[in-house]
Amino acid sequence: MEEIKLDLSNLDAALPSDFTQEQKAKAKTLFYKELAVAAHDFYRGKMQTVPKAPAPGFNWFNVWYTPGVSKISTSIREDNNQSFNLSNRGNIVAVVSDSTRVLGDGDCTPPGGMGVMEGKALLMKYLGGFDAVAICVDSKNEKGENDPDKIIDFVKMCQHSFGAIDLEDISQPNCYKVLDVLREECNIPVWHDDAQGTACVTLAGLINALKLVNKDIDKVKIVYYGAGAANATIARIVNAAGADPAKTIMFDSKGGLHKNRKDIEEDKRFYRKWELCQATNPDCVDDFPEALKGADVLISMAKPGPDLIKPEWISSMAEKSIVFVCANPIPEIYPYAAKEAGAHIVATGRGDFPNQVNNSVGFPGILKGALLVKAKKVTDNMAIAAAKAIAEFSEKRGINTENIIAKMDEPDVFPYEAAEVAMQAIKDGVARLEMTWQEAYDIAKKDIELARSTTKLLVDNGVIPQPPKEMIDKILKKTIEEVR
Amino acid sequence: MEEIKLDLSNLDAALPSDFTQEQKAKAKTLFYKELAVAAHDFYRGKMQTVPKAPAPGFNWFNVWYTPGVSKISTSIREDNNQSFNLSNRGNIVAVVSDSTRVLGDGDCTPPGGMGVMEGKALLMKYLGGFDAVAICVDSKNEKGENDPDKIIDFVKMCQHSFGAIDLEDISQPNCYKVLDVLREECNIPVWHDDAQGTACVTLAGLINALKLVNKDIDKVKIVYYGAGAANATIARIVNAAGADPAKTIMFDSKGGLHKNRKDIEEDKRFYRKWELCQATNPDCVDDFPEALKGADVLISMAKPGPDLIKPEWISSMAEKSIVFVCANPIPEIYPYAAKEAGAHIVATGRGDFPNQVNNSVGFPGILKGALLVKAKKVTDNMAIAAAKAIAEFSEKRGINTENIIAKMDEPDVFPYEAAEVAMQAIKDGVARLEMTWQEAYDIAKKDIELARSTTKLLVDNGVIPQPPKEMIDKILKKTIEEVR
Repeated sequence: MEEIKLDLSNLDAALPSDFTQEQKAKAKTLFYKELAVAAHDFYRGKMQTVPKAPAPGFNWFNVWYTPGVSKISTSIREDNNQSFNLSNRGNIVAVVSDSTRVLGDGDCTPPGGMGVMEGKALLMKYLGGFDAVAICVDSKNEKGENDPDKIIDFVKMCQHSFGAIDLEDISQPNCYKVLDVLREECNIPVWHDDAQGTACVTLAGLINALKLVNKDIDKVKIVYYGAGAANATIARIVNAAGADPAKTIMFDSKGGLHKNRKDIEEDKRFYRKWELCQATNPDCVDDFPEALKGADVLISMAKPGPDLIKPEWISSMAEKSIVFVCANPIPEIYPYAAKEAGAHIVATGRGDFPNQVNNSVGFPGILKGALLVKAKKVTDNMAIAAAKAIAEFSEKRGINTENIIAKMDEPDVFPYEAAEVAMQAIKDGVARLEMTWQEAYDIAKKDIELARSTTKLLVDNGVIPQPPKEMIDKILKKTIEEVR
Repeated sequence: MEEIKLDLSNLDAALPSDFTQEQKAKAKTLFYKELAVAAHDFYRGKMQTVPKAPAPGFNWFNVWYTPGVSKISTSIREDNNQSFNLSNRGNIVAVVSDSTRVLGDGDCTPPGGMGVMEGKALLMKYLGGFDAVAICVDSKNEKGENDPDKIIDFVKMCQHSFGAIDLEDISQPNCYKVLDVLREECNIPVWHDDAQGTACVTLAGLINALKLVNKDIDKVKIVYYGAGAANATIARIVNAAGADPAKTIMFDSKGGLHKNRKDIEEDKRFYRKWELCQATNPDCVDDFPEALKGADVLISMAKPGPDLIKPEWISSMAEKSIVFVCANPIPEIYPYAAKEAGAHIVATGRGDFPNQVNNSVGFPGILKGALLVKAKKVTDNMAIAAAKAIAEFSEKRGINTENIIAKMDEPDVFPYEAAEVAMQAIKDGVARLEMTWQEAYDIAKKDIELARSTTKLLVDNGVIPQPPKEMIDKILKKTIEEVR
């Protein structure tokens, strides 16, 4: 049993060797959760604001502020697009959530999403080379209901201050209306990462997994477990990328989605689900274990496991089955259990298991690409271009069943993705600014490197302290005692 | 004629020696404005977001993000106050404006305020040691009117993500309702810097100016020119600090404020102005030059000059008159002209003239003090405590007629102010956290030093480039040609 390193890279080896796979998995989750509380408290959050322009002397405040800044106000008034050049607007994203469905933890009250949204902002800067600010909003109306119109109004009011909006963790069905209305009515990209982001990365993973098992996307049987915003959007995008809806079955908590589901048809807020009811599952299968028999692909975005999907169901799937179990923070079945039951490729949403199919490899590149060309929207084409870019990039550097797509620790994937997305934005006519693939790639690469070197500089010079080793040791010890 | 330095410290000497005072003043304003456009474009704004926590290895993203972050969501859900400890909420302020009255430039359209709000965010970090994000909102309702209720709703929705809100540049009369409702209904400090901030710093300047001319605040005749949110709040706070309302006359664009002003009485949105109508100007003076005769103090917050206030009016004031001409970006009369006309002490809002009475020496300390104790409000007592702290600090290090209060380039004023404000918050019962004066002072001092050393580190290591010297030279040359 090794001593845990400061970078946590040997966490597996630092756990007792007599722990079972299940104990290890449980210990890892517990350790990360407890360390999260201690570390967030130690640092008081994860993101700060810092000048990007110097003040070589105090007279410079006459430039950055009054009287000089007056000319910035009047210049932007004359041409609102100047706000992208004369302020940081062009490189900053608002991460907006009403905290009603925060990862796997459901409604967390308005400030409850701050940890996740700040985490997203951290990833955006570190991986995508752009700025971001966490804004958790209270979307309750006078009746005390979470009201999509309130989020819509909020975003429309502040869209002039940001280059893009990233919507996060808004519960169903509000998220559909919020996204669809804002995409239509805003003049900057409005991205719903839980839905479009996850769809993009899942499609990237699926493309490469199918290559590895030598199956064609239009011939495979795909079963979706969970019909939340993420899975509903995945199905739409996967179908757009060539899958056969007639070979597709999706489940929500009440059974299979199909044309006889009057409950979905009647509730107009669920129009996205109803579209899938009409297009998929022609045999109206309602039993999940039954549907899974002979399926080539399972894509589960249901709720935290680990015992939601039974090993015997996995065993009933076709040869060389592909299993995506992406609930957070704990997959619907642990990867080792799915593998033991016969799954050929298993992916999860977590970074501490192989095959992380998590949007962290998607949104930093997609949003960076959209920002580069000051895009007015992120089209579905742009999301699919990003998925193909991730799959291509990964294939070039080598893929296998334990490594189907790049992970976020491969920094070169992001500028590649950003450049592809920027080019697609230009093709789709939603770019305010044109540039070449190489120009987009170079700016993205430079900005990402700068974000990382900035962080390193702050750490190397003690501005950001290293995490106290005793804090990590103490929490690991406590975790091991609790799991044993 | 010297060559201009990178720090702009010798701008006066870099202007042609044959320029008149007026030409010099004009050239300085023009230079700062033109350099502002070039420099903002070069840096693409002024503020960025940067991690405040390290990622010693990619496994740390399992702590900062999923799965670990789940425990942050649930911890904050259990106790919303934990959001101040487990996220950056406790040290970040939203600078919110609807850009309807941006400095002296009026309505600048929603994104038009970005330069000013980012400037404010820069000052907050650099001077106050806390983070801030610029949010310009569109406050127009369906009828196309700027609607105070929209701003109120916006701020109430996002208050859970910030430690305080700084309202800026909201036009009259909306600003009164916005501030008063939000102060009442929010659970964090809502500060209207144009009103309360300016009032606090003006009071500080007035206290010291009166010391220098050996007059008592309760005996002087004070004339206010302009009855906007700033001046109306100044009058309220100055009266609260001991001035005699019966010796006070305030002017708006229609004449003197007094009990016969039916137009103000009838428009309920102007209730703050009506309060002043009832308390001040018992003789119902309506003529501004008449009112100024024999006055000890003029406080003007009207509109950009420089020829709004005539030298002969200044000459008619009492011996040792005190003149505050604080319109931005150009004072109502240039200081040299007011001095020539006999003013004893002249103050402006600008940093490039002596006696800057600008809120930049106030809000960074006040808001830092409020954040330190996680205050629920900023009371008027806290604003007055800050004014006294600024005056005291300045007196200790020496004051004279050209130097009545500390300027923002005296970093020690801010922790002093912050500590006084924090103590007053505790006394007023609005603090969530208690600490001693020394603790508050030490944290504020450390945070401010850290903000400055961070910026310096980034500049010294080339992460933030120095401004190109050619850019500065070119603009100075152009400015001189234009003014000549």
